[in-house]
Amino acid sequence: MAQQRVIVYGGKGALGSNIVSFLKSKNCWVGSIDLNVNEQADANVIVKPDSSMPDQESDINVKVGELLGEEKLDAILCVAGGWAGGNAKNIVNAADSMWKQSVWPSVITASLSSKYLKEGGLVTLPGAQPALKGTPGMMGYGLAKAAVHQLVQSLSGVKSGLPANTTVVGTLPITLDTPMNRKFMASADFSTWTSLEFVSELFFKWLNGEDRPASGSLVQFVTKDNKTELIMA
Amino acid sequence: MAQQRVIVYGGKGALGSNIVSFLKSKNCWVGSIDLNVNEQADANVIVKPDSSMPDQESDINVKVGELLGEEKLDAILCVAGGWAGGNAKNIVNAADSMWKQSVWPSVITASLSSKYLKEGGLVTLPGAQPALKGTPGMMGYGLAKAAVHQLVQSLSGVKSGLPANTTVVGTLPITLDTPMNRKFMASADFSTWTSLEFVSELFFKWLNGEDRPASGSLVQFVTKDNKTELIMA
Repeated sequence: MAQQRVIVYGGKGALGSNIVSFLKSKNCWVGSIDLNVNEQADANVIVKPDSSMPDQESDINVKVGELLGEEKLDAILCVAGGWAGGNAKNIVNAADSMWKQSVWPSVITASLSSKYLKEGGLVTLPGAQPALKGTPGMMGYGLAKAAVHQLVQSLSGVKSGLPANTTVVGTLPITLDTPMNRKFMASADFSTWTSLEFVSELFFKWLNGEDRPASGSLVQFVTKDNKTELIMA
Repeated sequence: MAQQRVIVYGGKGALGSNIVSFLKSKNCWVGSIDLNVNEQADANVIVKPDSSMPDQESDINVKVGELLGEEKLDAILCVAGGWAGGNAKNIVNAADSMWKQSVWPSVITASLSSKYLKEGGLVTLPGAQPALKGTPGMMGYGLAKAAVHQLVQSLSGVKSGLPANTTVVGTLPITLDTPMNRKFMASADFSTWTSLEFVSELFFKWLNGEDRPASGSLVQFVTKDNKTELIMA
């Protein structure tokens, strides 16, 4: 079997780094797209944060094309994103940064997927379970994630521009068990947080066609007593 | 009864101009926020299209504050927006422009509403009926409108930062009967398009508390045989 080729968008973040390590341990070729280099990845594409979205995309597009040559990807796993609180009184900067951190990578992933994915490949986009409803205390975050959810549905539709039989899945965690979240929510019940290892293993299963959800699925990660259940939205 | 004060965001577009005229005929004070001046409005705030969203907001915020002095608004009706087609192969520029044309005005409307609206006031935001599902042939448009829909739900929630008893409604047309749409879809069945007059009259009713939907409603405009039915999503 040929070596699997995967790009992790956000490959130097907490979740992204975990995924890169895991996929390397499974002998995949792994490229990372991020603001910073992930030394474990086979290749890195560095995002210029001050560029416009179209400029970021054209830059990333050229670099990914050079990296791949004639090869195609088995998967693009987009796990880029951030968090910002705030209601209508401070929505402006929050919406601006959340759009850049969550929606830009998702839109660029859609574009890259149309060019560099194999038929039957896998795309994951970073949603959020709370954004299935209104999020008055984190308005910018919620609206950006809602945009990602709708994009998952568009990408799974007819004539979406993706290669035949692509599976597009939105991943909707509630809280991921990252060092940053432990730092800022130190008194929370960690047994309800989803472990990064769980997500990495899940993505590897999906990569290999095991229990892969239907394209267009929004998969909620609901964790209780350190066990995560997948619930379709 | 005191004169009603309304701001129309997108007040020089096809729908916005219709609303401004209608409200003026009902003796409202009407301010327009747009790229271009609406001569019929009592006051105009001109948007600088090349500024960032935070810069647009702070500029508009100051100017609206100067216009209003000690007065507050009965309503902010946001009808700004545009349309762009395209699937994953050309999502990048479409998503970028749709975000700027639909989501920026909605986010800025949220911020202005937190500062300048009366208690019990009305806010409308520009959604789109097709974006309730995936929109593979107009991906950038759909994801921007989905963000607006989720923002409507956030703004109607507890501690949203809006004045007490604000009603926030998302308006979800399918196709509005504008000169531009007639030009570009000349062979369509116009009897299924929603007239601008219908929307202006509806907004005026809502402004006066008549049949005002529950806050957080996403109101679909479904038109058949030139009659429009309102269907809650």
